[in-house]
Amino acid sequence: MGSSGVGQYPTKTQVQFENFDDENIVTSAANNGKKECNGTPKDTSPALPGWYADVSWPGEAHIYKMEKIIFQGKSEFQELLVFESSRHGKVAILDGYIQLTENDEFAYQEMLTHLALCSVPNPKKVLLVGGGDGGILREISRHSSVQHIDICEIDTMVIDVYKKFFPDIAIGYEDPRVHVHIRDGIAFINSVPKGTYDVIILDAFQPMGPIAEVLADKCFLDSVANALRPGGVLSAPADSLWHKNFVVADTIEKCKNIFKGSVNYAWTTVPTYASGVIGFMLCSTKGPPVNFKCPINPLNPEQNGVAKGPPKFYNSEIHSAAFCLPSFVEKAIDPKRY
Amino acid sequence: MGSSGVGQYPTKTQVQFENFDDENIVTSAANNGKKECNGTPKDTSPALPGWYADVSWPGEAHIYKMEKIIFQGKSEFQELLVFESSRHGKVAILDGYIQLTENDEFAYQEMLTHLALCSVPNPKKVLLVGGGDGGILREISRHSSVQHIDICEIDTMVIDVYKKFFPDIAIGYEDPRVHVHIRDGIAFINSVPKGTYDVIILDAFQPMGPIAEVLADKCFLDSVANALRPGGVLSAPADSLWHKNFVVADTIEKCKNIFKGSVNYAWTTVPTYASGVIGFMLCSTKGPPVNFKCPINPLNPEQNGVAKGPPKFYNSEIHSAAFCLPSFVEKAIDPKRY
Repeated sequence: MGSSGVGQYPTKTQVQFENFDDENIVTSAANNGKKECNGTPKDTSPALPGWYADVSWPGEAHIYKMEKIIFQGKSEFQELLVFESSRHGKVAILDGYIQLTENDEFAYQEMLTHLALCSVPNPKKVLLVGGGDGGILREISRHSSVQHIDICEIDTMVIDVYKKFFPDIAIGYEDPRVHVHIRDGIAFINSVPKGTYDVIILDAFQPMGPIAEVLADKCFLDSVANALRPGGVLSAPADSLWHKNFVVADTIEKCKNIFKGSVNYAWTTVPTYASGVIGFMLCSTKGPPVNFKCPINPLNPEQNGVAKGPPKFYNSEIHSAAFCLPSFVEKAIDPKRY
Repeated sequence: MGSSGVGQYPTKTQVQFENFDDENIVTSAANNGKKECNGTPKDTSPALPGWYADVSWPGEAHIYKMEKIIFQGKSEFQELLVFESSRHGKVAILDGYIQLTENDEFAYQEMLTHLALCSVPNPKKVLLVGGGDGGILREISRHSSVQHIDICEIDTMVIDVYKKFFPDIAIGYEDPRVHVHIRDGIAFINSVPKGTYDVIILDAFQPMGPIAEVLADKCFLDSVANALRPGGVLSAPADSLWHKNFVVADTIEKCKNIFKGSVNYAWTTVPTYASGVIGFMLCSTKGPPVNFKCPINPLNPEQNGVAKGPPKFYNSEIHSAAFCLPSFVEKAIDPKRY
């Protein structure tokens, strides 16, 4: 294919707005110097007016019609865009990545939370790093055994915007067990006394590269392991199994060395994330053994905490199923078996 | 949002080509009078030159850069477009719908086939309706108990194009047990003596509406049930669980009345299908009971038939996991339980 007229498409980094009050035309702009996780810069773009383009990988994008721009702002840490979509309700874009949509956020939030909390008996103290939207707090709130929930979120803009525009998600903040710490997550983790938490949930979520980077940061993971009690559990998002450079085997090996307990990869469907799938990494520290595939602390459907109803996605069967992997993923994780 | 500059985007029905030999510019055209499954016509479109737009639902599309147009043709039945994509290998578009991509076809083909064939003991005679690409034949070929495979495909163009451009998929035709019938599937099914097949696989695949329509056709399903032996099994694609108008409960009820055995909905991940998910409907006729959730006829990893290697996706664990449903799907299927 020739070069003229092709290779030009909207990218998702640094959205800009023209005619904001009138037509809500969104023009995606240049690359802002950031790199794709595969090391190649994103294409620069002419615009697809009125549409938001989520560029999964070069040569592919998911586009959403923006019915109405609801919020656009920039804090000292990141840019946040909220728009009303035709089909997915409100959509939140953080630094150019889809963070969540009202239509399918529950799948991610419920699985990230309950894959961890339903795998340990009687969890009492939980730390959430990131997750300023409040959806994970809403899910933790369903667990009556929990006595104390710390959330460490660096960006008050995120909290404020979600409280204003996504009340059914930010409702998690209404749980009186929640203690909000506006701080850098790494500094917070480093300050935590050894063995403080039963469960730590990492929701500093940027699809693809950055997750792998966080999970590749040995110092950070050492601090997380240190902050967990023996047999405590970390839950973190991980790359989609369809990621072209799916390298979860290295991450699992590293996590096994650091956490010294069970380490498992799981996955579920979230249609608005790239490839329609998100992965999860579950790790337990040395101590009472944890079998992530068999939840021992099932949710009580009568106890929803501050959530307005029972979980829409999670149940014990889908918990176990999330750890069943396609053969090509099993092979990627354990090449020696094949 | 105002009307000018928005509400215009590429649609997928009736692709047209301009400057075919030079720039391979694809311009999606108007709606061709077809309707979306929800009854509303698709938007008409200006083009996104050099890209193919798969419009999942109004207000949303998945776009793919077309590196090279490989084939475009029209038979008396349908239009077929094959292009080389940046990331998914060759992509086949049938009547404006993504039929498959080289990158992820195995997930659909393996699951549709083995969810059925691994659920019955010693299957000997199998009918495939549609599936002219040959991928399902390739998967059936792994089963050494099978003695006879009929495929009824109406369109020789599909077979010819796949044999030429997708040899690793069309390799299924090389199995000597395969008997090709170029006929209308419904007429073929109606001509089959009662109780002929152990397994029938329906691969007349068009995402969203049309599948539901096929599964809603009582006469057709009666003929399928008649063509199956007692305790025989039908496998067919079904709507994604994320479909806005997910109405699988009605389909299950209808299938239970017709087949009188087990009827189950399953799902798996196929990133290039709308919402990243495809559903499956599994039905068994009255006779020896079939428990779809517990495969009793596992694949032998040493026996791959004409396939070039072991399955990439299917295994017994992912088989059972495919029947574990998110809570909102369970509720949609059995509202009385909630």
